[in-house]
Amino acid sequence: MTERLSQQFAFLLEAEKLKSVYRATPLADNSRRENSAEHSWTLALYALVLADQAGPGVDVNRAIRMLLLHDLVEIDVGDVPIHSSDGTAHGSADIQAAEAAAAERLFGLLPNDLRAELEATWHEFEAAQTPTAIFAKSLDRVQPVMLNLEGGGGSWLEYDVNWEQLESRVGAKVSHGLPAVWAWVQDRIRPWFTLRGR
Amino acid sequence: MTERLSQQFAFLLEAEKLKSVYRATPLADNSRRENSAEHSWTLALYALVLADQAGPGVDVNRAIRMLLLHDLVEIDVGDVPIHSSDGTAHGSADIQAAEAAAAERLFGLLPNDLRAELEATWHEFEAAQTPTAIFAKSLDRVQPVMLNLEGGGGSWLEYDVNWEQLESRVGAKVSHGLPAVWAWVQDRIRPWFTLRGR
Repeated sequence: MTERLSQQFAFLLEAEKLKSVYRATPLADNSRRENSAEHSWTLALYALVLADQAGPGVDVNRAIRMLLLHDLVEIDVGDVPIHSSDGTAHGSADIQAAEAAAAERLFGLLPNDLRAELEATWHEFEAAQTPTAIFAKSLDRVQPVMLNLEGGGGSWLEYDVNWEQLESRVGAKVSHGLPAVWAWVQDRIRPWFTLRGR
Repeated sequence: MTERLSQQFAFLLEAEKLKSVYRATPLADNSRRENSAEHSWTLALYALVLADQAGPGVDVNRAIRMLLLHDLVEIDVGDVPIHSSDGTAHGSADIQAAEAAAAERLFGLLPNDLRAELEATWHEFEAAQTPTAIFAKSLDRVQPVMLNLEGGGGSWLEYDVNWEQLESRVGAKVSHGLPAVWAWVQDRIRPWFTLRGR
């Protein structure tokens, strides 16, 4: 029992480090960049509040678990911004291998049963094949869009993103899991790009 | 549909402000104070990882929802450190009334059905009567203890806390919902207090 608790707390203390991983997206008030821990909280809240937008077969409680865990690998790998390296870095084989190794190290701190459960949850999210993972991935893509819009451009400015790039890197994924949400978001962000001739 | 999504996003954008509410507890590496958004993420992760410590009648998924929502009222009220004002401020009638008003304003941004659901979840946590709320409250009390220990004292130093105060303000609540966890934690923090004659 004591050994088990020691493993659980070793993992929880290691997870604290996600608060020092900063993302490309600034906070809505532009005061600083968002970190991956508070980003994960926001996404879990998105899942809770936008549950009525989930398609058939989505388990919202499992989506919340995925979103709580999805960025832990960044403790080892760092955040890879979606618009960096012309949009190619995020899904590259190198990054995926590094993230898989990070998952093995981090979840490996846990007792075996918990390790298997949480690692399976993380892999399901990464594979983005089940309705629950597709829903969770769509939320992960749409929240930075809202922050960029609120903050006056955020990482769109930093990476010189145009409308077409946003549609292919972000819109296509969001509309896969959350079509009505993407339609709503498009109406709000289109003027920002039009106004800047992007 | 569009009006409903506008209400959901109004709430989600307002919730972003929790990232600028700072707590008394420093991060484990002592680099800065923890904010209430990332704190909420950590607690949801605690619920997931320490689920096997939950007593009979605890709904872990509901506890996770409680923990995601529990500090939103701090957007209006700010964080009230557990050890401030000699441990009396946190549960005072004034603070409770201010938090109830904040809950009404914040959850009032949502469509009525969601408002009712999320407000009920928050009130259940606050009342701390159901097994699920008792489990969630215990997690909320124990995580800052772990951060203070990692960070070399944290808010125990700031508020000059002794062992007896920690036991009454924190230990009593943690051991109510998580007796084995508190026993494990006690063994690890007792030396910190003994060493300093507290």
